Amino acid sequence: MGQSVAARRRAPGRPVGNANQRERALDAALACFAKAGVAATSLRAIAVEAGVTPAVLHYYFGDKPQLLEAVVDERLLPASAALRVQVASAGENLAALVAAVVNGVGQLVVAHPWLPALWVREVLCEGGALREAMIGRIGPLLAQGLAQRFAAARRSGDLHADLDPRLLVVSLVGLTLFPAAGAPVWRRMLGAGDIDAQALRKHTLALLAHGIGQR
Amino acid sequence: MGQSVAARRRAPGRPVGNANQRERALDAALACFAKAGVAATSLRAIAVEAGVTPAVLHYYFGDKPQLLEAVVDERLLPASAALRVQVASAGENLAALVAAVVNGVGQLVVAHPWLPALWVREVLCEGGALREAMIGRIGPLLAQGLAQRFAAARRSGDLHADLDPRLLVVSLVGLTLFPAAGAPVWRRMLGAGDIDAQALRKHTLALLAHGIGQR
Repeated sequence: MGQSVAARRRAPGRPVGNANQRERALDAALACFAKAGVAATSLRAIAVEAGVTPAVLHYYFGDKPQLLEAVVDERLLPASAALRVQVASAGENLAALVAAVVNGVGQLVVAHPWLPALWVREVLCEGGALREAMIGRIGPLLAQGLAQRFAAARRSGDLHADLDPRLLVVSLVGLTLFPAAGAPVWRRMLGAGDIDAQALRKHTLALLAHGIGQR
Repeated sequence: MGQSVAARRRAPGRPVGNANQRERALDAALACFAKAGVAATSLRAIAVEAGVTPAVLHYYFGDKPQLLEAVVDERLLPASAALRVQVASAGENLAALVAAVVNGVGQLVVAHPWLPALWVREVLCEGGALREAMIGRIGPLLAQGLAQRFAAARRSGDLHADLDPRLLVVSLVGLTLFPAAGAPVWRRMLGAGDIDAQALRKHTLALLAHGIGQR
């Protein structure tokens, strides 16, 4: 906070940058984008959230589209890369691979609490500001890589023949990221305030391993 | 279209109502809400979409919050009731119940193409205009009823003991409504334009029946 006051005192001269302000601005942008949406978030609102002047934002990022680009490059792609590394290290076993996705998304959401809401608003919503970045840059490496490994597992007979390798990627998102994003709704609707992340993971892994039945 | 022209010619006098205009206005409101969001949709935009004058909307519904209320009462609750009837008629068998949910949501989405996008924008998104209606009025009957039947199935040993009855409701939404809402994203990201609704249903039922593996 001391730095932001200092930065404010320097206005209207050129702000003296420091890496800490820049990182704080990216985090603030993410928080604002997740909460209010990219379209409804002004650079001014991000500056307030970050405790810097608008001039500092301008100095580091230029305009809002450039700031959004920096958020993709420096926050979303690294988060996606971390998940990819975790999934890649799961080895060849199908169950271990699926568990790595479930656990990896769970850890991602804990590390980046803004992620599920941002994904809903800016990827799932029609016209979302991150949909193209997700389709073109963030998603493909992870999603297509998984689909290929599931296709190989089906060829080798490990994956059930009635499952579609690409749709299994969609199912995994629907069983991991969607429950995280929808938690504020389903917790209240189902009186499920007692269900924590560990219970969710256990349930999801059991469903993927066995389906609904006992056999 | 003839009627809307007639209605426009009568302005600025009191519009002469007819049921057809009213229904068309509700459908137009749904289309606009799903596409642009409730907050960003004006009564004027809905009037244009419906081919009626703003005065006609005002005559039937009053203001926008009242129109939204009518959309809930006359479009969303009936759609939810239709799914509930279908699920209720599935009988006691767990697999049949789960299949009724999967097939029922599939049919719901075909009958109401606006539903997935509206759900994402106005229920899943923080601050969505239909979140409270979903939690308080639309969702509980269906979601809580399902959770109770899954809990009974677990007591009787039909549902796998590691599955949580309430989370299974969440899983089913994540495997049905979410894939419908996310289709524009995953179809492009995974090059999956060839996967139709029937393939999706087959995959989902297989996953729920067996999990991922062959046994």
